[in-house]
Amino acid sequence: MIVMGSGATADQIEHVVVRLREAGADARVSHGREATVIGAIGEREALAGLPLEGFPGVERVLPILKPYKLVARELSPDPTVIEVRGRKIGDSFFGLIAGPCTVENREQTLETARAVAAAGATMLRGGAFKPRTSPYTFQGLGLDALELLREAREETGLPIVTELLDPRHVEDVIDVADVVQIGARNMQNFLLLAEVGRIDKPVLLKRGPSASVEELLMAAEYVAKEGNEQIILCERGIKTFESSLRYTLDLGSVAVLKEETHLPVIVDPSHAAGRRALVLPLARAAIAVGANGIMVESHPRPEEALCDAAQQIPADEFGEFAREVAEVVALMGKQVG
Amino acid sequence: MIVMGSGATADQIEHVVVRLREAGADARVSHGREATVIGAIGEREALAGLPLEGFPGVERVLPILKPYKLVARELSPDPTVIEVRGRKIGDSFFGLIAGPCTVENREQTLETARAVAAAGATMLRGGAFKPRTSPYTFQGLGLDALELLREAREETGLPIVTELLDPRHVEDVIDVADVVQIGARNMQNFLLLAEVGRIDKPVLLKRGPSASVEELLMAAEYVAKEGNEQIILCERGIKTFESSLRYTLDLGSVAVLKEETHLPVIVDPSHAAGRRALVLPLARAAIAVGANGIMVESHPRPEEALCDAAQQIPADEFGEFAREVAEVVALMGKQVG
Amino acid sequence: MIVMGSGATADQIEHVVVRLREAGADARVSHGREATVIGAIGEREALAGLPLEGFPGVERVLPILKPYKLVARELSPDPTVIEVRGRKIGDSFFGLIAGPCTVENREQTLETARAVAAAGATMLRGGAFKPRTSPYTFQGLGLDALELLREAREETGLPIVTELLDPRHVEDVIDVADVVQIGARNMQNFLLLAEVGRIDKPVLLKRGPSASVEELLMAAEYVAKEGNEQIILCERGIKTFESSLRYTLDLGSVAVLKEETHLPVIVDPSHAAGRRALVLPLARAAIAVGANGIMVESHPRPEEALCDAAQQIPADEFGEFAREVAEVVALMGKQVG
Amino acid sequence: MIVMGSGATADQIEHVVVRLREAGADARVSHGREATVIGAIGEREALAGLPLEGFPGVERVLPILKPYKLVARELSPDPTVIEVRGRKIGDSFFGLIAGPCTVENREQTLETARAVAAAGATMLRGGAFKPRTSPYTFQGLGLDALELLREAREETGLPIVTELLDPRHVEDVIDVADVVQIGARNMQNFLLLAEVGRIDKPVLLKRGPSASVEELLMAAEYVAKEGNEQIILCERGIKTFESSLRYTLDLGSVAVLKEETHLPVIVDPSHAAGRRALVLPLARAAIAVGANGIMVESHPRPEEALCDAAQQIPADEFGEFAREVAEVVALMGKQVG
Repeated sequence: MIVMGSGATADQIEHVVVRLREAGADARVSHGREATVIGAIGEREALAGLPLEGFPGVERVLPILKPYKLVARELSPDPTVIEVRGRKIGDSFFGLIAGPCTVENREQTLETARAVAAAGATMLRGGAFKPRTSPYTFQGLGLDALELLREAREETGLPIVTELLDPRHVEDVIDVADVVQIGARNMQNFLLLAEVGRIDKPVLLKRGPSASVEELLMAAEYVAKEGNEQIILCERGIKTFESSLRYTLDLGSVAVLKEETHLPVIVDPSHAAGRRALVLPLARAAIAVGANGIMVESHPRPEEALCDAAQQIPADEFGEFAREVAEVVALMGKQVG
Repeated sequence: MIVMGSGATADQIEHVVVRLREAGADARVSHGREATVIGAIGEREALAGLPLEGFPGVERVLPILKPYKLVARELSPDPTVIEVRGRKIGDSFFGLIAGPCTVENREQTLETARAVAAAGATMLRGGAFKPRTSPYTFQGLGLDALELLREAREETGLPIVTELLDPRHVEDVIDVADVVQIGARNMQNFLLLAEVGRIDKPVLLKRGPSASVEELLMAAEYVAKEGNEQIILCERGIKTFESSLRYTLDLGSVAVLKEETHLPVIVDPSHAAGRRALVLPLARAAIAVGANGIMVESHPRPEEALCDAAQQIPADEFGEFAREVAEVVALMGKQVG
Repeated sequence: MIVMGSGATADQIEHVVVRLREAGADARVSHGREATVIGAIGEREALAGLPLEGFPGVERVLPILKPYKLVARELSPDPTVIEVRGRKIGDSFFGLIAGPCTVENREQTLETARAVAAAGATMLRGGAFKPRTSPYTFQGLGLDALELLREAREETGLPIVTELLDPRHVEDVIDVADVVQIGARNMQNFLLLAEVGRIDKPVLLKRGPSASVEELLMAAEYVAKEGNEQIILCERGIKTFESSLRYTLDLGSVAVLKEETHLPVIVDPSHAAGRRALVLPLARAAIAVGANGIMVESHPRPEEALCDAAQQIPADEFGEFAREVAEVVALMGKQVG
Repeated sequence: MIVMGSGATADQIEHVVVRLREAGADARVSHGREATVIGAIGEREALAGLPLEGFPGVERVLPILKPYKLVARELSPDPTVIEVRGRKIGDSFFGLIAGPCTVENREQTLETARAVAAAGATMLRGGAFKPRTSPYTFQGLGLDALELLREAREETGLPIVTELLDPRHVEDVIDVADVVQIGARNMQNFLLLAEVGRIDKPVLLKRGPSASVEELLMAAEYVAKEGNEQIILCERGIKTFESSLRYTLDLGSVAVLKEETHLPVIVDPSHAAGRRALVLPLARAAIAVGANGIMVESHPRPEEALCDAAQQIPADEFGEFAREVAEVVALMGKQVG
């Protein structure tokens, strides 16, 4: 839908129509008193490539169609269920993903893995490579961490979720990871998206702190376009003026995503909360709004954690936490997968 | 806590100390290598009046104490329970406030009131005076609406929640209202806050779309300072970059408010949702995060509504809606009051 | 432009068309593969009253026309010039409005008025009634302040800009004020807008910290609709995630407003800056982006100011400040009015 | 500065003090009536590693010192001037960087390069690898584009600014680029920051759309920590609720950055503007607020541009644009470098 300004000439209108038809679109012109509107119907991809907003006389371009396709619910009305080593996420299967923010050492990793496995977690998360705001803070153990995660999986059976930061690490990470995480800061790192679009493991895609719901879906479309439609979306809080929490958890977006896409949508309440007392209420709310899973951080001794200490749930309290969230999962007619 | 810049002179430091002591505060100076820090301990009110940030040499002023007092949980660790015509909100009593966005006519008002009463609502909401973004839209029936609300209360027994917009209407509004609402756009209309601080009816104070949690609590402090501590806080969505919903419902702030204040905190999911399909998931999430009530809009025939048509729940579906939310209320150990 | 979802039935489409025609609009239906679009052409006011978004089958309503009319540049392509006691703002006339944040006492007011008059200011600003976030801070001298402003005008000849907070003060304020300010927090206090729409003095309307450009123009439309088109718009910073300044001064909006409306647009850099060292760079940028004036705060002894001490320019430095800004005014082809 | 909650025990306070001392910091305890405050003085790096917020009893941690060091003005009070092939940016040298959004073909690239060179631009920008929100839009010519840029430099003498997206392209990009750009979406791609920290060419670091000023400076610190202090910072607009422009250009942040860092700060007005009519006013404002340069997009025939068509300045109008901005540069006491 192209709106021509009130001062647009007949030539300018004709010019737009000609270019639309060249691009294979059907163009219909409606003349109003204050504006002329051109409706264009054609292939999304062809129209997306036309720089209509730069044409003389054009005031605004209002897209009617959504810019994503493969990830849209229209294409696939049935919800996608992703299965990893026997654990499921999607539709009525709820994923409880837990583990340390960062893999720090063998003892911390195994201790946490055992605690969350015993409490009923369905996957183990743990950071090997950590993007940190300050260059003076701990950046993760790197490849060594991957070995510790492998060991934790062997002992507990929990599939591993870990973040891929660097396209040069794809081989190493997928050698261990069962689900490859793309972190919030890399949501629009399109080359990384293309890389994980070509692997055959599920991708957990976190929403960037300033990404719109549509941008998140477009990022998922990048992955899907390369052939990998095993994508789990994750809301983790956006940046707003409010500073009483670290991020504003946008649970309304979860409800919108459930309408817009067939992909499973989970929530990470830990980063938004920033403090462990807020993790449980936010987790409950995430489940109640319709999330297909949550991802939370846990540590045997949070006060010694090298990263995000304040928000990690003590491993020995994780069982109680899991029981509380399971009640809401059941109320929502889902089962921990 | 006053941070003096690295270039602050001894005179400038001394000057701050003298002014603090004049204001009755105790001032202690710590000299660091890169900054000098002055700790001031004194009456919040006295210190708030000192323009410390304008003093020469001062780099930053970091307040340690919260700027609110009467509404703070520290002052009153027990949660406030507000009772209106036998209905309660606060602590374990959950308020289900429902009704039309705007009172349009007798039939619509009574029909909605009957439906929400039958479904178990605890209060009836309805706008008599409507603040609207455009001067070309319906602005409410005004005083006539108050009479219709009174009639609805007589028939259903439900206490009335309605908004006060104009300080010249205080008498008229409190003559009918059981709970006086201060709308989001008036959250920092301090003269209106002072007016309702002097009445003896509960106040429902909605958070402004760009107000921080602290500013909301300060607005409540304005009301409390005048003597009225019967205040219900209401989260209804904030303005952010995200546009897939009308507002970003900030449920994290509800969890923070429950920590910070003894006042009941409710949520209005309708305005944030903007569409009725999203009202139920947001309402569930609000309850799960710990809200003491919700306020939702309902209309016998939403498509004929003169205001916010898209987000109103059809009156004949309200019973089902109420049953769904009641399950979450029960799970959270609360009872519909 | 009404977009019907892909599942909309022929009846639902017909229903929308019928309602549009009842409202006097011309409706044209275009059937696409993925959506049906109904174009409605009619009176803005009639269409604004139709709750189209609530109709069954409707997915989205995309307005083509701007919702404001009287303040739109289309209606009046020549820029409005507002004249007050011989001083002009608008088109090539630049307004330099200065004075204390708040009128504190006679000496401070007169001293500041003399300094800014001597430096070439064209109007004197000063707050009589102050909206303050905390109830424990100074709220202004009220009616006494108005008398001091009147005295300052008598001595300096500068027209007075002062804020109206309470509809019950209209008479008192317009008795003294030459320009009536509506503060940022009251930008959507529609009853106050209607009040100043009925007076015959210019109105200075500040943008709310979370108001969009369109909402600001709609607020101006409220004033204009009542008959008063002497409106000066003022950008003063919006709320964003960035906290290094008090507000994010949105100078891009000034450029947009200059396109959208014939009304003069000024900028208040003091509140956004929050510190006096930033006032000059922001003032320069405001002029360079095309503002028709600036409004800044000045005080004889900022460190004793009862309000916003950190951002006030010392009165004895105001002459230098005025010289600096005058250079940019001249470069932009404007003259201090 | 660590604030212990009012309920903190003596043991908890002692525990914090012990851990601080273990980390080599000096800790001083002040007991107030409502809170206990512990002041810690020590090495920034050591303190940054302590998870103080996770300790029992700790309510808040208020950092007094800035978390960046190498890029801070304190460390190097003289402004950094960066020289590239005889062109300078920083202090009184103003950089005028112009060129196409994306390198599309030989003719477009050379034609634009000639036009901007003739108009007095000091560097040529051009994208070889383009991060695009949609996978269905043009992603850049890649390595071929680099050759075209090399040819444009040979003909015009203008140094080349181009973006590095992929750590695997470092060699290829620095083989041609004179200044390596890190795009807004990669501002917190820490591995890319580390890569460009190890090269010996200047880095142009764009602020992320949701990055705070402090986060931008921390990103620069990542580069500097690896040894490369030739960094140009670039403001290009942030995400806010306002949608009348593509981004909200945060010119206040430029004024803050000029205080905080010795690095040159430039502004890209094109992306925020989104439309070419707004580029000139925003460019003027950027210069007036104190920027050390601007970066703008130009194209021989914008309506045929494959990327950001609406905001590119036609190459044949660039001379006039350059004359307009040069006047503001001169007024600010700078010279086009």
